[in-house]
Amino acid sequence: MTVTDRPPLGQRVLDGDPRAIARAMSLIEDDAPGAPDLVRMLFPHTGRAYVIGVTGPPGAGKSTLVDRLVGTVRAAGETVGVIAVDPTSPFTGGSILGDRLRMQAHAADAGVFIRSMATRGHLGGLAPTTSDLAVVLDAAGRSLVIVETVGVGQDEVDIVRTADVSVVVLVPGTGDDVQALKAGIMEIADIYVVNKADRDGADRMVTSIESNLSLQAFGDGQWRPPIVRTEATNGKGLDELWATIQAFRTHTAGRREARLAARQEYRLRELLARRFLAHVEARVLGAGEFDAIVGRIARRETDPYSAAADVLSRALASGAAR
Amino acid sequence: MTVTDRPPLGQRVLDGDPRAIARAMSLIEDDAPGAPDLVRMLFPHTGRAYVIGVTGPPGAGKSTLVDRLVGTVRAAGETVGVIAVDPTSPFTGGSILGDRLRMQAHAADAGVFIRSMATRGHLGGLAPTTSDLAVVLDAAGRSLVIVETVGVGQDEVDIVRTADVSVVVLVPGTGDDVQALKAGIMEIADIYVVNKADRDGADRMVTSIESNLSLQAFGDGQWRPPIVRTEATNGKGLDELWATIQAFRTHTAGRREARLAARQEYRLRELLARRFLAHVEARVLGAGEFDAIVGRIARRETDPYSAAADVLSRALASGAAR
Repeated sequence: MTVTDRPPLGQRVLDGDPRAIARAMSLIEDDAPGAPDLVRMLFPHTGRAYVIGVTGPPGAGKSTLVDRLVGTVRAAGETVGVIAVDPTSPFTGGSILGDRLRMQAHAADAGVFIRSMATRGHLGGLAPTTSDLAVVLDAAGRSLVIVETVGVGQDEVDIVRTADVSVVVLVPGTGDDVQALKAGIMEIADIYVVNKADRDGADRMVTSIESNLSLQAFGDGQWRPPIVRTEATNGKGLDELWATIQAFRTHTAGRREARLAARQEYRLRELLARRFLAHVEARVLGAGEFDAIVGRIARRETDPYSAAADVLSRALASGAAR
Repeated sequence: MTVTDRPPLGQRVLDGDPRAIARAMSLIEDDAPGAPDLVRMLFPHTGRAYVIGVTGPPGAGKSTLVDRLVGTVRAAGETVGVIAVDPTSPFTGGSILGDRLRMQAHAADAGVFIRSMATRGHLGGLAPTTSDLAVVLDAAGRSLVIVETVGVGQDEVDIVRTADVSVVVLVPGTGDDVQALKAGIMEIADIYVVNKADRDGADRMVTSIESNLSLQAFGDGQWRPPIVRTEATNGKGLDELWATIQAFRTHTAGRREARLAARQEYRLRELLARRFLAHVEARVLGAGEFDAIVGRIARRETDPYSAAADVLSRALASGAAR
């Protein structure tokens, strides 16, 4: 990827070229030198795609549900990009789920673009570049972007809550309903899905969610999260889910700015933190100095707070960023 | 909390006073002004506690297992502190699980200290202050610290992988074994626990883990993660789990530094990022300016990369930290 390639690549993304979309996403995932300029170029062309966040505990059938939802929205004339966020192997840095064969039914459909993205395994909890991948799909003219996250960690919750609509997928079973109610993903739901609704326990789970909802106060005209029953494996309930998403979109049409702002705030903080840490390691500390400081902390020769204050002072005294 | 209270509080923590431990933890969780000085004071007295990380998907029975493990290690003469990391409600900022009644069996035992910690709901994925809470328990002379995390998010994985030993708890059931194998928490395991081992599917789950392990190469003298079957509700398998943890501790006795360093690296990056963002908002940007920048990004008048670069430049040009 040379500098001269970049303007054409951005233009081809704007033209909706799937190969250009894939290449742009790879640049962003690899944090390649050209990635920030690419996002800068595409960014003014974004804000049109409607972002659907889908989350839930492992085993809830999210992938299958998303695959089916893609079929439903395509039939409704939407174009769609899917970003499936996978936890990264801490050892290999590779995506655990990246090799799964997804959505073969849509393989020949140019209106569908699917990307499995590995979350970054950096210690320090730096958030992944999901937002930038969504920028690419948005700029490429996809009318819908579906972001699917595995797990219930804080990063995953943040990714989904900054979507335009948050869909929480649960599944009846081994007490997981109660666990999920506890696990902090319930309160971000705009729409609940009880998947595998033919299973024993589906009614009980719906009742659990209802009683959870009954504890909350909903004002006049406020959206009360509906519960949609689905059987993703055979497509049951998908039309209702899509209708419910559209109803939410209509209901909140005048209040989209708050979600957009929350998404951008998340992204700005994350970028600032990442850029600052990169600046510190490249420009403030000498080669190997970061590890040396960590070693001194590990040996109790200093403490994390003193070390952080010292590095921060040095960084701020070191003058302008490049 | 006044400045004059702080030295006695730190001393009382070092003396192992449970009320002082609780108070110190509250200061740290609330990010109170005195918290950094407190951690600085306690930090040189740490490094003795052995940190056991316990994670796994929701519904795996981690809490019950940890409760039982506490009983086992107490019987073995250890003193123990437990930090249970709960996802935070994005709306209330409160801990979802904080109100649960935990470990009533240990309520009268001064050798047990239990704390449910809410993860911070800040957008931007800032990591929680688990490390600092562990510092308090370590400095207070607890010989073991158990960190239990809900969920499989990246932050949670980072917390557990920087423990001295990582215990991954799985449960037979509705295909969750396969999901869990996929979810990225397997490769951090030093020890696997198949809990609720009396259930149908337990053998299949053990076989799944074994075949997963058989794909990895273990060198001579390298630890091969064993699989322990437990039934936490009735205490079965807990003695074996404790024996296995001790065996791992013995096996890795000469190689503890790498874990300690990883833990401190995680902490230092997280502190640096958090301190920098706080500095930016308090000293670099004017009142309301952060929100104004976010608004400009949301309206596509600028893009996140340009905004971050601009803020970083201003921060670095603004001179020394406070």
